[in-house]
Amino acid sequence: MTVESIITDMARAAKLAAAKLARFSSEEKNAALKRIAEKIVEDAESIKAENRKDLDAARENGLSAAMIDRLTVSDATIRSMADGLREVAAQEDPVGTADSTWIRPNGLEVSRVRIPLGVIGIIYESRPNVTIDAAGLCIKSGNAVILRGGSEALHSNRALAKAISESLADAGLPETAVQIVPMRDREAINHLLRQDEYVDLIIPRGGEGLIRFVVEHSKIPVLKHYKGVCHLFVDQSADFEMARAICLNAKAQRPGVCNALETLLVHGEVAAAFLPDMARQLLEAGVELRGCEKTRAIVPEAVAATEEDWPAEYLDLILAVRVVDDMEGAMDHIARYSSQHTEAIVTSDYGRARRFCREVDSSVVLVNASTRFNDGGQLGLGAEMGISTSKLHAFGPMGVRELTTTKFVVRGSGQIRT
Amino acid sequence: MTVESIITDMARAAKLAAAKLARFSSEEKNAALKRIAEKIVEDAESIKAENRKDLDAARENGLSAAMIDRLTVSDATIRSMADGLREVAAQEDPVGTADSTWIRPNGLEVSRVRIPLGVIGIIYESRPNVTIDAAGLCIKSGNAVILRGGSEALHSNRALAKAISESLADAGLPETAVQIVPMRDREAINHLLRQDEYVDLIIPRGGEGLIRFVVEHSKIPVLKHYKGVCHLFVDQSADFEMARAICLNAKAQRPGVCNALETLLVHGEVAAAFLPDMARQLLEAGVELRGCEKTRAIVPEAVAATEEDWPAEYLDLILAVRVVDDMEGAMDHIARYSSQHTEAIVTSDYGRARRFCREVDSSVVLVNASTRFNDGGQLGLGAEMGISTSKLHAFGPMGVRELTTTKFVVRGSGQIRT
Repeated sequence: MTVESIITDMARAAKLAAAKLARFSSEEKNAALKRIAEKIVEDAESIKAENRKDLDAARENGLSAAMIDRLTVSDATIRSMADGLREVAAQEDPVGTADSTWIRPNGLEVSRVRIPLGVIGIIYESRPNVTIDAAGLCIKSGNAVILRGGSEALHSNRALAKAISESLADAGLPETAVQIVPMRDREAINHLLRQDEYVDLIIPRGGEGLIRFVVEHSKIPVLKHYKGVCHLFVDQSADFEMARAICLNAKAQRPGVCNALETLLVHGEVAAAFLPDMARQLLEAGVELRGCEKTRAIVPEAVAATEEDWPAEYLDLILAVRVVDDMEGAMDHIARYSSQHTEAIVTSDYGRARRFCREVDSSVVLVNASTRFNDGGQLGLGAEMGISTSKLHAFGPMGVRELTTTKFVVRGSGQIRT
Repeated sequence: MTVESIITDMARAAKLAAAKLARFSSEEKNAALKRIAEKIVEDAESIKAENRKDLDAARENGLSAAMIDRLTVSDATIRSMADGLREVAAQEDPVGTADSTWIRPNGLEVSRVRIPLGVIGIIYESRPNVTIDAAGLCIKSGNAVILRGGSEALHSNRALAKAISESLADAGLPETAVQIVPMRDREAINHLLRQDEYVDLIIPRGGEGLIRFVVEHSKIPVLKHYKGVCHLFVDQSADFEMARAICLNAKAQRPGVCNALETLLVHGEVAAAFLPDMARQLLEAGVELRGCEKTRAIVPEAVAATEEDWPAEYLDLILAVRVVDDMEGAMDHIARYSSQHTEAIVTSDYGRARRFCREVDSSVVLVNASTRFNDGGQLGLGAEMGISTSKLHAFGPMGVRELTTTKFVVRGSGQIRT
């Protein structure tokens, strides 16, 4: 068997499984999710044993401590994966619900009904918990899934996939609804990206390099999650205390994630009043400040920002700070440097709040709240598959609903066109 | 200027225009649409003069009478384009409306708000009226558009684009919101398909060859409209008279369009009772019948269908007819040969109607109604940009709403994550 024929066979099997999976009730799908949650706890020892093979190889290959940490499957990781599956089971099932129904003048009753997408391919990097999260969201939404995890996690992912398939069989669902690419060859990705006959959507989860590679090579539509260069604009009418709490939370609560703040923009009229205390709080939290000239005149601790700082996604305790003339200046800066992920304003002015919401072209726009709320769980969508920064199909956090589409169901009594 | 630099400049200008266009009110956009409708009537003589250049060249190049007919811009064509623009102006504007709004336990108010996609590239074949239809739908939905029409219609399209740009300027909207690729080189399409920095969506409108070319070469997401291999299943419980009226309408009312019927499936138990009258009516309407063996035993006028008939999109007065054992057989046939466009059942059985709607995986599924209703106008969506046969972003007819997406607007009072 060549890599190509293995991938093609998997894609074909996924398509057949998807057709079956679309017909299962929410109850049956939820039972399968709960069975997987039980099973990975039952099989914890063998899963951890397989994970140790990956960890040994990782140490041999000199992977960083951070990478090894992300790769590790502990009892706590397994419990957390099982909890995640139970949460997904508890969510609403969008499949089969009508978004809207209307009657045409000729009596036709038209409904837009939610259906699964079909087959989803997910290409991700090292963390084995993505295997469980992604499988759970796909089963819930009635989609078959082909998973291609990081090659350094292959033993772990195979062990998890085995637990999933056995649980699906226990629950009477098609075992091939969840499949994992069984080989390390990078070639497998290229073949997967050309299965447009069988696969409906590709979701890459990982660094920008991976995502660009997938977009460049895929014949299948791709949901893209690029950088999060998130901005906070402190307007002249802002409540300073609120603005400082939001800025500190957005930057420092968890700096390594995509919805963390990267650039603070401050209205020129209030910069001298707002920035000194803000800077002190940020410096105390260990944040390095990189400021424009006007910022540095107020905050001497800030190092000089260069043109490279404005589009930077630091994912670290570093914050770019710029004093702007007014809201226009802030929105121009955002239009130029933002990655269309998340932008926030702190203001007490009704008109500017309204205008910021309407005119800022990002997936999540917030007034008087932390950028850290761009997250499926925080916004009430439930568990998510990532945050789309492109506008087709889904823009922003992608929950179970974003893994479905709609078809039209039309009920008549003999209508013909005249 | 190279072709590449011209296309890149157009794409950049479109992006700037899109940012402005997104902020205009419905009233302003509708005024622009109405101004274009007036203007093309005012400029009818010069538009027809430019069209004559295309027609002369078409005759010289020996284009078919049908092609020349589609290329011709008459006073009636212009009136019809103007009427279309006024209809689009009268439709609801989705931009800025919230699909839904909810409150989180911490008081955050979350809305999903409709926004334009940004810049749309439309690649189409000869009919110049697409230039006006597409421009109208894009302006309405707040999107800038780059149009690449058939090279044989270039003079006509340039004249229409000139009228559009002048009308946009009259109405105070950015002139570059609608641009037409000004050269015939096929190379221009390749460059357009690589402007993923500026262009958000590509919609090809034309034959399958064009669409496959675009999908193969585009770095930008593509909304695909492949074939319409539409099926009608006449169940054993069908009202025969209703079934015959629907079949005749679906096949013969306008055989050259994508929602016309291509294959009739008849339940074996009623084939002998249903088919003779059905066949007579179809033959009287000039329809050639291509039947399976069982069909031919009942309808001797039918020629023998081959394996090539089942996936065929005839777009002509030809109908494939197959007798199936039961509904299962009909759904298996559909799953195998359908293009996921439109399928209908005629039945009086509640359970089978319900099952057909749930299990048939096509963009429009109808009970007791003609396949010809898969059309934006007929389903109540207003004018459409085509019918998507792939599931991402839109599945089925694409109206103004399908040219938008949603962003999340989050209103708070100082919320941070803990």
